Amino acid sequence: MLIREKLEQRGLVIPPAQVVPEGMTFSYRRAVRHGNLVYIAGHGPSEGAGWGAPFGKVGVDLTVQEAYAAAELTALNVLGTLEREITGLDDVACWLKMTGWVNSGPEFTEHAQVINGATDLIRDLYGEDKVAARAAVGAPALPFDMPVEVDAVLALQ
Amino acid sequence: MLIREKLEQRGLVIPPAQVVPEGMTFSYRRAVRHGNLVYIAGHGPSEGAGWGAPFGKVGVDLTVQEAYAAAELTALNVLGTLEREITGLDDVACWLKMTGWVNSGPEFTEHAQVINGATDLIRDLYGEDKVAARAAVGAPALPFDMPVEVDAVLALQ
Amino acid sequence: MLIREKLEQRGLVIPPAQVVPEGMTFSYRRAVRHGNLVYIAGHGPSEGAGWGAPFGKVGVDLTVQEAYAAAELTALNVLGTLEREITGLDDVACWLKMTGWVNSGPEFTEHAQVINGATDLIRDLYGEDKVAARAAVGAPALPFDMPVEVDAVLALQ
Repeated sequence: MLIREKLEQRGLVIPPAQVVPEGMTFSYRRAVRHGNLVYIAGHGPSEGAGWGAPFGKVGVDLTVQEAYAAAELTALNVLGTLEREITGLDDVACWLKMTGWVNSGPEFTEHAQVINGATDLIRDLYGEDKVAARAAVGAPALPFDMPVEVDAVLALQ
Repeated sequence: MLIREKLEQRGLVIPPAQVVPEGMTFSYRRAVRHGNLVYIAGHGPSEGAGWGAPFGKVGVDLTVQEAYAAAELTALNVLGTLEREITGLDDVACWLKMTGWVNSGPEFTEHAQVINGATDLIRDLYGEDKVAARAAVGAPALPFDMPVEVDAVLALQ
Repeated sequence: MLIREKLEQRGLVIPPAQVVPEGMTFSYRRAVRHGNLVYIAGHGPSEGAGWGAPFGKVGVDLTVQEAYAAAELTALNVLGTLEREITGLDDVACWLKMTGWVNSGPEFTEHAQVINGATDLIRDLYGEDKVAARAAVGAPALPFDMPVEVDAVLALQ
């Protein structure tokens, strides 16, 4: 089954690219290909012109469940970037590494449970033998007060 | 001398793999090989069924010396994962990158001294010409309240 | 135009390598080459024997503008390491990934604006089609109380 079909089956939609404020320019790329390696920039739970998750600190402004959903949406954005900027979703040979940052305070310890929202989706779509090595860590704050940020390295077929 | 012999000479033991609570599944791999590149997930100072280091924040719950030992144990776990999941310890051509996160508060500045616990071990085992580029940074908290987390990228021969 | 000429045109100078206190040894390398991949260690705004930026937390001890300048200086140090330890600045085929940590408190959200100081320089020197994927995140503290830390992966021609 194609990845797009699996997404549809789960009722999941890849959001459109994050809308960029007029006049804003970027000095980085959302994805860079080198040979069959692809580096994906840090993404968050954006949804086109808005945000698909509450802002703020997990454990304070969001529950772990809400943050799990934000991490899943973040992974959908990673997939959207891959598809729009590099190649089709079915061209992935293997996910190599994902790093997930959780916007959280000094008492928080459930980083893994939050970032599972991103990596569970990748597992469900690509299978256990293609999932990435992962690091899940805390950050005292993130750009735009996003609750999570996830980047990735993957190999194409 | 084999890496295993160097470990023995130093009285160091690679702990068994971290025991996974029954029913728990993972959506990431501890190590992923692509060609001769290996990506190792974020590891901590676990020891089989338990933890080989005090929990908590370095500078508050642990001294820098205790955290150095925790980082060394973390590097032993990185080696254990490499050996159990990918290939023998002597097949490493070069360590490419290690990132070390230190669970610490806003006043802490000795991240390098802590993460040295991991990279000093790699240097002692593999030699100065094979050590990784490194980033050592703070995190306000880490999964399970681990004092340190370290991931790695390496090249096989 | 050569990268060195572009730097000169902008009045920018790559600082000398950070002076290492006598007797201090390192268990990591500032840059590691594997094939045509280069991994650059986490760098900060050092300037030879001193520091070219105020210490401390962005938003408290430094303004965003000062931190932008610190990130630019950090990128100059990344270039200096590349040139001293691996190869000439004009041998870069493509910047693949940069991660930027901003030393900042829980209320800070302008991480992107700070790390732009590093990636804007890379864009100005190498062009938009060679810039890296990027992650910009917060850290509660950084080694030596540096305001920013940046690491990089790049491909050589």
